[in-house]
Amino acid sequence: MIRQSLRSTASRFFNTSAIRTMSAPLDASKLKIVKSSTPSTPKPNDQLVFGKTFTDHMLTVEWTKENGWGVPEIKPYGNLSLDPSACVFHYAFELFEGLKAYRSPDNKITMFRPDKNMERMNKSAARICLPTFDSEELIKLMGKLIEQDKHLVPEGQGYSLYVRPTMIGTTPALGVSTPDRAMIFVITSPVGPYYKTGFKAVRLEATDYATRAWPGGVGDKKLGANYAPCILPQLQAAERGYQQNLWLFGPEKNITEVGTMNVFFVFKDNATGKKELVTAPLDGTILEGVTRDSVLTLAREKLDPKEWTISERYYSINEVADRAEKGELVEAFGSGTAAVVSPIKEIGWKGKDIHVPLQPGKQTGPLTENVAQWIANIQYGKEKHGNWSRVVADLA
Amino acid sequence: MIRQSLRSTASRFFNTSAIRTMSAPLDASKLKIVKSSTPSTPKPNDQLVFGKTFTDHMLTVEWTKENGWGVPEIKPYGNLSLDPSACVFHYAFELFEGLKAYRSPDNKITMFRPDKNMERMNKSAARICLPTFDSEELIKLMGKLIEQDKHLVPEGQGYSLYVRPTMIGTTPALGVSTPDRAMIFVITSPVGPYYKTGFKAVRLEATDYATRAWPGGVGDKKLGANYAPCILPQLQAAERGYQQNLWLFGPEKNITEVGTMNVFFVFKDNATGKKELVTAPLDGTILEGVTRDSVLTLAREKLDPKEWTISERYYSINEVADRAEKGELVEAFGSGTAAVVSPIKEIGWKGKDIHVPLQPGKQTGPLTENVAQWIANIQYGKEKHGNWSRVVADLA
Repeated sequence: MIRQSLRSTASRFFNTSAIRTMSAPLDASKLKIVKSSTPSTPKPNDQLVFGKTFTDHMLTVEWTKENGWGVPEIKPYGNLSLDPSACVFHYAFELFEGLKAYRSPDNKITMFRPDKNMERMNKSAARICLPTFDSEELIKLMGKLIEQDKHLVPEGQGYSLYVRPTMIGTTPALGVSTPDRAMIFVITSPVGPYYKTGFKAVRLEATDYATRAWPGGVGDKKLGANYAPCILPQLQAAERGYQQNLWLFGPEKNITEVGTMNVFFVFKDNATGKKELVTAPLDGTILEGVTRDSVLTLAREKLDPKEWTISERYYSINEVADRAEKGELVEAFGSGTAAVVSPIKEIGWKGKDIHVPLQPGKQTGPLTENVAQWIANIQYGKEKHGNWSRVVADLA
Repeated sequence: MIRQSLRSTASRFFNTSAIRTMSAPLDASKLKIVKSSTPSTPKPNDQLVFGKTFTDHMLTVEWTKENGWGVPEIKPYGNLSLDPSACVFHYAFELFEGLKAYRSPDNKITMFRPDKNMERMNKSAARICLPTFDSEELIKLMGKLIEQDKHLVPEGQGYSLYVRPTMIGTTPALGVSTPDRAMIFVITSPVGPYYKTGFKAVRLEATDYATRAWPGGVGDKKLGANYAPCILPQLQAAERGYQQNLWLFGPEKNITEVGTMNVFFVFKDNATGKKELVTAPLDGTILEGVTRDSVLTLAREKLDPKEWTISERYYSINEVADRAEKGELVEAFGSGTAAVVSPIKEIGWKGKDIHVPLQPGKQTGPLTENVAQWIANIQYGKEKHGNWSRVVADLA
């Protein structure tokens, strides 16, 4: 009730579109490239660790209130030099995106739904009064950056180049106000499959003492502010033997997200035999995950509606516990860019573990496995789905 | 109800003390000083703008998980050079404090209750898994920094040196986890009085569509994460003619804070004639303001308990509106380091303005004025209050 009334009020007040006019728009055609004089050789695939090794180049573009977006630059990967009073250090004027680039069978490099990430990046920027930009221009610039370091895009199913566009406020002043200087930078990291030796289902702690996001807050945006506060609860869950937090909300103990991913549950009605794939609705507290959207879209396309209902609705840990008790809990998984899907096997709640079924001899349920395959097929160019897979660079 | 039950659960789980052991403690005696070769001359007092001009030197100390705190360095003020993957840019591993240094009549430089700021800084650090430190060592180091630039501590009532200790996580990796590298830096800025020509009372918009903090969140800590999300609601209030947000919480519309300050209201009971000074309780959603604590302590010491009740309790905008209607709303002010006290004259709520009385011909109520004087007398060494005013440097 609180949630819904706040939600409608919020949409009335938070008109985050067109917050500011920009003097110069972001323009990929102005790109300047300074090449690294020491190109690196690719690491062996088995030595790739998520987000620890970066490619030879990075992209930067500065923005000022007076002049708008400046000249985009691709230059050797290196440190940022910033005034210690820069507002990114004090007031968390920062946001990011995460997306992946893949080698396709026809020797191109593709990205998966980059327009969705750019749309969300603009929403995140507007929410904390940082400048917005033309999504297509940044997609072009990311393509140029990837092209520059194309020898470092790893080969092989499950391997990809993780791309991290970031925006920070750089105004050198301690007054808490709208930044008049900002910067986009993009760095890229070659990564291997999240599950190197097949799926590994995780144990979650259902967490109600810490709250990830709330109505009237910023939990639906990809802001730095949403991340640091979630580490301590994760460490504490780990001490109790759980890899991640299953974030609950409100007196109803509604399920919202898991760790830094969206989350899906599958229930099967004992009476009708009908199955339901369910995830929390986008009410302002839930990250608008690109993988979440892809799962929902593909499930609606591929699952037989006579057997399946696809729901975006509120559901609580109590419902999950009740349905597990009745044998109606069939499957559960997280969804996000890094792992695509992350199967769940147990959920700690009120001193007991709720068991989520897995397939015999496997660390995943059947739908989770299918979803992973559906998405991988599109990402690696084996199947086409509208413009989800976009060519951003050529290897020829 | 939600709030209270979450509060007690949270305190059970969030044991943020002694999260990690540190190899080497922070040690002021290891300080290394590299002096600037171009000492600046002080700006005229009337040109001082809050947090835009900094002194000649800064303090930095790096920390690693393996080795603990390194050698503290005072060196010329200059840019920080950080890897673009540093976790401060992506996940808001950052926190800060704000405190002031004053010239005392006996030619010393004092700080106001720095132990309270250091205590809070350590709590903030523990909450986002950054390293803690010995408060007294950082106080000594801040003293050395101020001494280095003592010619830039401005003279005159209302003038001071604003000191900004900051801690950031610097681990160069994109995995969301506990930082294994961090840095404290301290910069200082000469500042003038918040009210150059006497008090100026502000108009607030009571805000319920955006929520500053939540039970189980981090609203009681001085984290960067609490600041960027509050700028858009402030801009929107400004468009409607209000300088700041009066942050409400929950279905009760409880009053929590104003802008980036704590807030106090004064009510007078028509029946008994007794007055009440009221502010929200420290339930995890309220910043543990040093000025807030000072106001409460001094009010309890100086106000006649036969005439006054001092309350830390929940109270709502509806109570304020009702009591204004009955003529029982007497005064209201924000409290914080920058302004000390900030008188309030109007509060926009449900399309109407609640009027807060001011003294005839003045922009402040009588208690607000007294509180400002009580605190200034201690800060500028005219009155003594325990160890609230600490000598940190000598001008001789």
